[in-house]
Amino acid sequence: MRLERAAALAPGGVGNIGPGLDVLGMAVTGPGDRVIAERADEPGVKMTGGGHPDLPRAADRNAAGIAAIAVLERAGTLDDGVRLTLEKRLPLSGGQGGSAASAVAGAVAVNRLLGNPLDATALFECALISESKLSGRHGDNLASALFGGVILVRSLDPVDIISLPFPAELRVVLAHPAQRLDTAEAREVLPRFIDRASAIAQMANVAAMVAAFASGDIALLARALDDQIAEPARAHLLPGFVEAKAAALRAGALAGSISGAGPTSFYITDNDTTAAAIAAAVRGEYDARGVACDVRIARVAARGALTLPEDATSA
Amino acid sequence: MRLERAAALAPGGVGNIGPGLDVLGMAVTGPGDRVIAERADEPGVKMTGGGHPDLPRAADRNAAGIAAIAVLERAGTLDDGVRLTLEKRLPLSGGQGGSAASAVAGAVAVNRLLGNPLDATALFECALISESKLSGRHGDNLASALFGGVILVRSLDPVDIISLPFPAELRVVLAHPAQRLDTAEAREVLPRFIDRASAIAQMANVAAMVAAFASGDIALLARALDDQIAEPARAHLLPGFVEAKAAALRAGALAGSISGAGPTSFYITDNDTTAAAIAAAVRGEYDARGVACDVRIARVAARGALTLPEDATSA
Repeated sequence: MRLERAAALAPGGVGNIGPGLDVLGMAVTGPGDRVIAERADEPGVKMTGGGHPDLPRAADRNAAGIAAIAVLERAGTLDDGVRLTLEKRLPLSGGQGGSAASAVAGAVAVNRLLGNPLDATALFECALISESKLSGRHGDNLASALFGGVILVRSLDPVDIISLPFPAELRVVLAHPAQRLDTAEAREVLPRFIDRASAIAQMANVAAMVAAFASGDIALLARALDDQIAEPARAHLLPGFVEAKAAALRAGALAGSISGAGPTSFYITDNDTTAAAIAAAVRGEYDARGVACDVRIARVAARGALTLPEDATSA
Repeated sequence: MRLERAAALAPGGVGNIGPGLDVLGMAVTGPGDRVIAERADEPGVKMTGGGHPDLPRAADRNAAGIAAIAVLERAGTLDDGVRLTLEKRLPLSGGQGGSAASAVAGAVAVNRLLGNPLDATALFECALISESKLSGRHGDNLASALFGGVILVRSLDPVDIISLPFPAELRVVLAHPAQRLDTAEAREVLPRFIDRASAIAQMANVAAMVAAFASGDIALLARALDDQIAEPARAHLLPGFVEAKAAALRAGALAGSISGAGPTSFYITDNDTTAAAIAAAVRGEYDARGVACDVRIARVAARGALTLPEDATSA
């Protein structure tokens, strides 16, 4: 049966999860990016819009479009015509994995339209072409958007992604101040070389986070979620972050850091009451600075774009 | 009841386990270092010998003695007199965690003699004083000697050690060529700064090793056990290692690397038949070079010095 229309929804996420620069990612509940792919007469991919006034509607410059084109190429069906509609719900340059979610939703939707010729690894690679072009060659946000849950990207060459268990009680408070931060700019401030002691300390923390996820030890997760490389390097790009994090910790957050490349920051806890207190404290900090800040309480999203049942993807 | 005599046996181990520089360690079955502590009239620690002709018998320069003195100091019982006998079974400067095993056995034996005034963390810190003085401030070998099994040292300040599960079928082939390599010398060749991409790749592999231990996924363990920092930097100090590793992989080893700072190398597999083939292949390589090599097949030692039952420690 030839489909005329297919859709996919990909969740946003927290890239890095603190110290796990480029290697740890966590999908979160709440808004996601949705792509609808429809058959069209003209070969190639055309977009009905960019998904947002500030996003290009040229398919080869739009996150969803680039991934969609890559799927057609990979599947060897470039003569197929696809009309792509991106429903953008994640913030632009927000640090919530929006470009990754658009790319993943684009790849999965087009793959469904074609009858699923590509496997998960191939879809990841198609989305990675988009992410590499638009924000850098890292797979943390892509993997969580595609597979859901908490993921570890061991390697991109070859692709080796590990899904980690996660404690059900984990709550993630996301605070998005009214600021955009280009991922490329946020990457430029990262140190090119890291002294051995710092590299070892970061390695130990990331390994301990994996152990914590595996055993459901939230106290260990809190101790290990301590980024000594990217967070100190990026903090100056994010006015208010240091104060917001301090307020969150005072309100009971177990740990917190910058989500992806920022400006969103995230804070973890194991219960709704503390999550609400953290949200209020962080909002209060930004209010005091006169900066609008969108704060929400999320959980880990167990489902990624690939795991959505078919009926959830039909319009 | 005041004890007149106490003993402790600490296992050798594989420090780093490849990419986990200073943070991952694995206790292995086979020889260990044993320390007998006896009451003596004269205050302080005296050693009946160094444990080996090449080891100092001055307590303040011997791994077991330094740790024993630290226990007396920490327990506030410096007026106690202790006579220490070190039965050294692990190779000197061999890369099998011998100095750590001596330190841990010394600390645990004296603590028992005193009626166990110190907890595990305090014992670790006492042994760390010894390790820091003799081979460097790293806790991977100490933690596996003290607790057994596979451990992750998240932090030394404060001490934060995580015991990881491990697959029961894991076999570890240890090859110890007739060569001594001073840990301090082997540390000098490590890069002081690491480029970000290499640090991230190593971090991902160490994290994946923890995920593999947690889930018992030996195939993942094999993919992740890929040290791109210490092994390339140290290989030139270990004539024959590159060839021995290649022979081990040809013989079916899932992975391998340098054990601790070397010269011992280690190779993993999941069954006895392949372990025997690896052992023969590695021995053959060193034979062909005219270098004596002690090769043995071990398992992960679940028990560390601290977990030995009392009856196993009495003479």
